[in-house]
Amino acid sequence: MGDLILTTYDWVPEPPRGFVRDLRVRWALEEAGLPYRVASTPFARRSAEHFAHQPFGQVPWLTDGDVSIFESGAILLHLGGLSDKLMPADPRGRSEVTEWLFAALASVEAASQPWSFFMFSGDADETPMRKFFDSFLEARLKHMETVLTKREWLAGAFSVADILMADVLRLVDRFDGVATYPACRAYVGRATARPAFMKAYADQMAHFAAADIA
Amino acid sequence: MGDLILTTYDWVPEPPRGFVRDLRVRWALEEAGLPYRVASTPFARRSAEHFAHQPFGQVPWLTDGDVSIFESGAILLHLGGLSDKLMPADPRGRSEVTEWLFAALASVEAASQPWSFFMFSGDADETPMRKFFDSFLEARLKHMETVLTKREWLAGAFSVADILMADVLRLVDRFDGVATYPACRAYVGRATARPAFMKAYADQMAHFAAADIA
Repeated sequence: MGDLILTTYDWVPEPPRGFVRDLRVRWALEEAGLPYRVASTPFARRSAEHFAHQPFGQVPWLTDGDVSIFESGAILLHLGGLSDKLMPADPRGRSEVTEWLFAALASVEAASQPWSFFMFSGDADETPMRKFFDSFLEARLKHMETVLTKREWLAGAFSVADILMADVLRLVDRFDGVATYPACRAYVGRATARPAFMKAYADQMAHFAAADIA
Repeated sequence: MGDLILTTYDWVPEPPRGFVRDLRVRWALEEAGLPYRVASTPFARRSAEHFAHQPFGQVPWLTDGDVSIFESGAILLHLGGLSDKLMPADPRGRSEVTEWLFAALASVEAASQPWSFFMFSGDADETPMRKFFDSFLEARLKHMETVLTKREWLAGAFSVADILMADVLRLVDRFDGVATYPACRAYVGRATARPAFMKAYADQMAHFAAADIA
């Protein structure tokens, strides 16, 4: 392991604060107690250097010595390999964490993100497509509810898979979308009650607030 | 490595044929020349056993001996570990393939899937949300175009990341969405010209066609 440097935007507007994806990485680093520092890249102008690290001009990316990694899922998997507080070391445990990392993105966020765009837009029209995306999310939450009724964390002990899934569900909860899914709601509650989440959240808010003052 | 068994639906309606996600796994298995067999689970009734392997009642899942893995991304990463035709063995190469696997899902498919739902629906209304999802996809394709202008495959040599990214872009191409992105279009063309893709595609089509006759 080299020096760990997490790069995020220098500033973002109010609405996404507390939900910028560097939070997932901060959270994991805090859970593992790994030393790291946070660097900033301009939100207003995406430089060539930014695209060299993150080809879509998004954040975050992580450098571990001379290796640079983008995509929060890939970064969490990498950090999982550095600490057994984030992922078990045995192949079966790693496999289970890995499938749930992908599921958080490709099965749950794939449905919750488009739904959240409708919520952010304030579009109240009951168009057929709006209804379609509502049911797409409901179908996934229904199955997550079954899963979370039977377990505290997704893959045995708490892992990076829970960081990713809880962060995805947290955005649904922001728009009250898990109100009728008590196990999902309780899961978001116990994940975000962890000191590492609270530290990560406060740090992200302070990071962007500092840019307002500067 | 144990016996590899890929499970998909016994039958699906016409529209998704050729695009069911078991294709990604078949393609990787064919590229690597790994022996495998295909098993079926009923499309019409999702059994408790189905949910035990795939908590969302979707396909595919792969069993490797007594390990069962769901999510096409996680399965591809697992297969990458079994063959250097699918993923390099060195840590840096693996890291690069891994970030592109996540990017194919969380950066590109996250935008292309909602867009494809609008296409499938035949909804021609130029609603603000329709326009939003159009631009969301365009933003991602624009950056993929830059990436693919400069390289043949995403992570040096052909890898599971290309299987996933090309399969994601193939669905965009189905609705002519890459017409104005020549590098993306050429990439889909050279990926799907590979014998392993052609075999996987023909096998999936034959699998579902056999169920029509049965």
